[in-house]
Amino acid sequence: MEFYYYSILAGIVALVVAVISAMLVLREKEGTKQMIEIANAIKEGANAYLKRQMKTIIIFAVILSILFFFGLSNGPRIVLAFLVGAITSYLTAYLGMSIAVRSNVRTTKSAERGLNDAFKTAILGGSVTGFAAVGFSLIGLGALLAYFTTLQIPLLIGFGFGASLISLFARVGGGIYTKAADVGADLVGKTELNLPEDDVRNPATIADNVGDNVGDCAGMAADVFESYSVTLVAALLIANSLPHVTASLFAYPIYIAALGLIGSMAGIFFIPKVRNGKVVRTLYASILITVAIAAILDIALTRYLALPMGYFVAVLSGLVLAFLLFWVSDYYTGGSSKSVIKIATASKGGAGTNVIMGLAVGLRSTWMPALFVVGAILVSYFEAGVYGIAIAAAGMFSLTATILTIDSFGPITDNAGGIAEMSHLSHSVRKVTDTLDAVGNTTKATTKGFAIGGATLSAIALFVAFANAVNITAINVLNPLVTIGIIIGALLPFIFSSFLMEAVGHAANMMVEEVRRQVKTIKGLMQGKAKPDYARAVDIATVNALKSLAVPELIAIITPIAVGLIFGKEALGGLLVGMIPASFMLALFMANSGGAMDNAKKYIESGHFGGKGSDAHKAAVVGDTLGDPLKDTAGPALNSMIKVVSTISILLAPVFVTFALVH
Amino acid sequence: MEFYYYSILAGIVALVVAVISAMLVLREKEGTKQMIEIANAIKEGANAYLKRQMKTIIIFAVILSILFFFGLSNGPRIVLAFLVGAITSYLTAYLGMSIAVRSNVRTTKSAERGLNDAFKTAILGGSVTGFAAVGFSLIGLGALLAYFTTLQIPLLIGFGFGASLISLFARVGGGIYTKAADVGADLVGKTELNLPEDDVRNPATIADNVGDNVGDCAGMAADVFESYSVTLVAALLIANSLPHVTASLFAYPIYIAALGLIGSMAGIFFIPKVRNGKVVRTLYASILITVAIAAILDIALTRYLALPMGYFVAVLSGLVLAFLLFWVSDYYTGGSSKSVIKIATASKGGAGTNVIMGLAVGLRSTWMPALFVVGAILVSYFEAGVYGIAIAAAGMFSLTATILTIDSFGPITDNAGGIAEMSHLSHSVRKVTDTLDAVGNTTKATTKGFAIGGATLSAIALFVAFANAVNITAINVLNPLVTIGIIIGALLPFIFSSFLMEAVGHAANMMVEEVRRQVKTIKGLMQGKAKPDYARAVDIATVNALKSLAVPELIAIITPIAVGLIFGKEALGGLLVGMIPASFMLALFMANSGGAMDNAKKYIESGHFGGKGSDAHKAAVVGDTLGDPLKDTAGPALNSMIKVVSTISILLAPVFVTFALVH
Repeated sequence: MEFYYYSILAGIVALVVAVISAMLVLREKEGTKQMIEIANAIKEGANAYLKRQMKTIIIFAVILSILFFFGLSNGPRIVLAFLVGAITSYLTAYLGMSIAVRSNVRTTKSAERGLNDAFKTAILGGSVTGFAAVGFSLIGLGALLAYFTTLQIPLLIGFGFGASLISLFARVGGGIYTKAADVGADLVGKTELNLPEDDVRNPATIADNVGDNVGDCAGMAADVFESYSVTLVAALLIANSLPHVTASLFAYPIYIAALGLIGSMAGIFFIPKVRNGKVVRTLYASILITVAIAAILDIALTRYLALPMGYFVAVLSGLVLAFLLFWVSDYYTGGSSKSVIKIATASKGGAGTNVIMGLAVGLRSTWMPALFVVGAILVSYFEAGVYGIAIAAAGMFSLTATILTIDSFGPITDNAGGIAEMSHLSHSVRKVTDTLDAVGNTTKATTKGFAIGGATLSAIALFVAFANAVNITAINVLNPLVTIGIIIGALLPFIFSSFLMEAVGHAANMMVEEVRRQVKTIKGLMQGKAKPDYARAVDIATVNALKSLAVPELIAIITPIAVGLIFGKEALGGLLVGMIPASFMLALFMANSGGAMDNAKKYIESGHFGGKGSDAHKAAVVGDTLGDPLKDTAGPALNSMIKVVSTISILLAPVFVTFALVH
Repeated sequence: MEFYYYSILAGIVALVVAVISAMLVLREKEGTKQMIEIANAIKEGANAYLKRQMKTIIIFAVILSILFFFGLSNGPRIVLAFLVGAITSYLTAYLGMSIAVRSNVRTTKSAERGLNDAFKTAILGGSVTGFAAVGFSLIGLGALLAYFTTLQIPLLIGFGFGASLISLFARVGGGIYTKAADVGADLVGKTELNLPEDDVRNPATIADNVGDNVGDCAGMAADVFESYSVTLVAALLIANSLPHVTASLFAYPIYIAALGLIGSMAGIFFIPKVRNGKVVRTLYASILITVAIAAILDIALTRYLALPMGYFVAVLSGLVLAFLLFWVSDYYTGGSSKSVIKIATASKGGAGTNVIMGLAVGLRSTWMPALFVVGAILVSYFEAGVYGIAIAAAGMFSLTATILTIDSFGPITDNAGGIAEMSHLSHSVRKVTDTLDAVGNTTKATTKGFAIGGATLSAIALFVAFANAVNITAINVLNPLVTIGIIIGALLPFIFSSFLMEAVGHAANMMVEEVRRQVKTIKGLMQGKAKPDYARAVDIATVNALKSLAVPELIAIITPIAVGLIFGKEALGGLLVGMIPASFMLALFMANSGGAMDNAKKYIESGHFGGKGSDAHKAAVVGDTLGDPLKDTAGPALNSMIKVVSTISILLAPVFVTFALVH
């Protein structure tokens, strides 16, 4: 099984690329003293959050490790795998974010030299996250396989569960943090005090910029790292269960991942120049280059290994799916899409009709992604059986480095804009950073489509692996215990996201009160003569995010255990069956509603329907506020939830087979 | 099989009760000329709508009849059953609404004699809908069985599908109508012109009152009629498939329905007096009386038939479930519940935090109803097998007459309040009608929980019947074709409700423009010297509701046909598996979000957080506007959707078994 070494080798290459990218970015200049000061405040806030979050994570990890160590057969090895998964995931998020909070100010500085230079700096900064994710995952997985030398399900799933746990924390905590700060900053800053975005006088503005990093960068990185890892794990497990498994069939998904890495290097480092300010088009080109090169290499690989061409078609369906999911998010939430204009138009009737139309658009936006996923499943299944679905997912995630680069570009450019604004830089610089900031908003929205669809596909692959793990060849939905599992499964995403929405609402209100308090008590604040107490606002976001973590996370971890213990493995299978599609739809609905309402506000701000300050604009601000936690907290956190539930179900499946109360 | 005659007999008793109730109501006085004039305007608007809706229904029904006639084996008989189902359902909705639009003004008039008299008039008016639904259903079903003398699946399902089709039209059309008018009337009337609710000068006010009848009365009646009918059908079909079926087992669900009818007569006609103005408590008492008497009779029946006591426990679990679903809606959306106060408190932060919290509450509200349904399934299954689930549903729906009475009480009291307001009646009368109006809002919200949970349970029973119909004993979710079906199934409620939300947003905007136009062009309107053109507003609501019907209805009808034809019966089974739980959760989320946001506004209006006109109140009005289509259009329409999809799937199942493209 020397393909393990290929995995490690490819991982090392990815890490080298990440390190080179990091060095290139850090070589860039940081700008004026004021800019550095602001950037440092953001950096410190982000680090402080990650540190405190780590404490909570360690408590969870230690408890789970003890339980696994003593409770599962082969416990010590599972704990090792679990810790490797958790640590590599955490390293990805930490490293990516550390560079992101250093790339922001450098992007601002390079904006002095024009759009193209600033764009390249931001992309380079983002690529650290992208390549680190791939690198750590391939190395972690490869090393574990090399060490264990056998392909035991619990070990691999232990690794996946480690990654899932970190993802859950990063997505949930980061999501609450970022929107508590953002909504809080906007509600008082923009609405009450009439301050522009990122005004130095707004006490919550640093917290807002920190939030972009801990939510959109670290959270997304951990999420996609996890999907990437569990997809490979699921593919290996399914391959292992095939009667006709061969060495090359087995290594196939790892090779696909490695070839996707080469495609990503081409897509990111030979990224075309931005022409006529059309940044989004350049990013599309980058993805297309990645897809094209990966596809060519994949076809060559399939020939070389003498595998049936159907396998390549399955991989290709995954690649195409990734692109389509990227496109369809843009179609529904893009700056001047039909749906966005519909919402903007509805704003003329007031906030009520704005949010009605915003939710309608989100609900509508589910159909194309759902049918794309259905299409990919159909094609890959007919071409290569159940294994085809797993390699379609592997194909899709072979683009991870590129997609995560483009995603992390978002918080970097958002911060760059903030720093430019707070440092009162020249109009020309701010024009560049504003352009990039707007693009960053779009990419953050579009990469979500990829993350949600990908999480679904990887959860389906895991589900098949689950069935293998518990030795069931059929889960019969006519069994009422399965029906019960299905209902509880469909319930999970709703109840889980309710806690996140409420947490944001609550924390944002606390932020609002703090900002009001500072404005009242700090003399000269509004005149720009005194500095606000940024640290306190950062602290409020941090404390509230961490406080609100526990309940939803416990629900996600305990529900599958309870259903498995009480009703047995088939009901647990039902739970996964109910959860995955309901969560898929709810996540799409939330992410796209939020994205479209955000851009509807921006559409009005760009001068339509009376522009900034008009009644339509005020209505659209309400929609944007509602959209914030939908798109950046609840929606994306569902990805992490379904994978945690899936991995823990498989991990503990042997226990449920023995112990279930009801059969 | 002489139990058919019991069904017909019980149905006749119910109809007699309905007729007596109607006569008693019509004997009441109608009040002043002005009151009669307003009531007539509402009546005419409602009749005009039903008439025009019927034209659209006839087109659908004729096309479907032709397809069934020639396309299905035993076609002519299926068409007959289909038409009986459609006509009895339509008669229920029509008769119920005809009395409701006559009871409203009589309730206003009797309010002169105090709260208790007005309460009784409204309950009497509502009971016509309740008993008519039970009567028509039992007679229709019994007559078909007596005529056919055999228990063929397609015939029974044809009856169910007829009821489903009417339900879909009534729920979707009525839902769009009522909220287009309501939102439109509020947006201009209350927000722009500062008019109170139901002000005569608001051109949309008659349309708003019509909407309550066509949506909350006719729509709900058709919905519950359908659930009632298909539950009985499903129970008969499942009984028929049991290896140990006996005559008494077979007749059991019909007897349960008949005994529930007796319980309802006691609950409605021996309803306690309202003490200390606590109307809601009196209604709770009415339900408890119904439940208690039905339960006592059911236990006696089970003994008499010498059936195992487990069957009674299953029925009891349904009765308890009905009560719990009623209670839990009240728990989340009731006037001064914790959740409502949470939303009201969040309104202090503005409209954005109000709607964030409103959606959070709705998402949260899913867990108890879901677990209650799970509990009922568990209990009934362990006590009486799969058949137990069907008789639990039958037990639950044996309360139909009482629940529908209490529901129809809502639009009657709402209209009564409107008529009192528009006729400028004395303060004491308006105090009575306002109290009843507030209670009506609560009961409309709480009966929704019953309707949603009941629709889910009856869909599950239908699903089991579906499996029998296509001779499958297992639907294996590990089959990728089933996976595809599941994803498409989960998609259906999202895409379906998107059209309804959008339709309301669109139609409300047209209403807003019309009201603005009238205010501008009709001289002396705002001074009360000239009358608005109510008819035009009614017309706008009518036309828009009917125009927006077609697409969502076609999606609901065509999707299962397409999935069945292309992917076969197992994928279609997957579609039902994906759809039912996702729709259940989405409907609960929507209905309870809307109900809670509505009452949060009322909570503020009652003097909290600054009361009417405060910033918090303005924020809460936005939430109420969003909540309107969630709770009265999209949420309830999902009930009808899942049953149409279920019944058409079973009806056409034999075709899919022969013709599916992929196997």
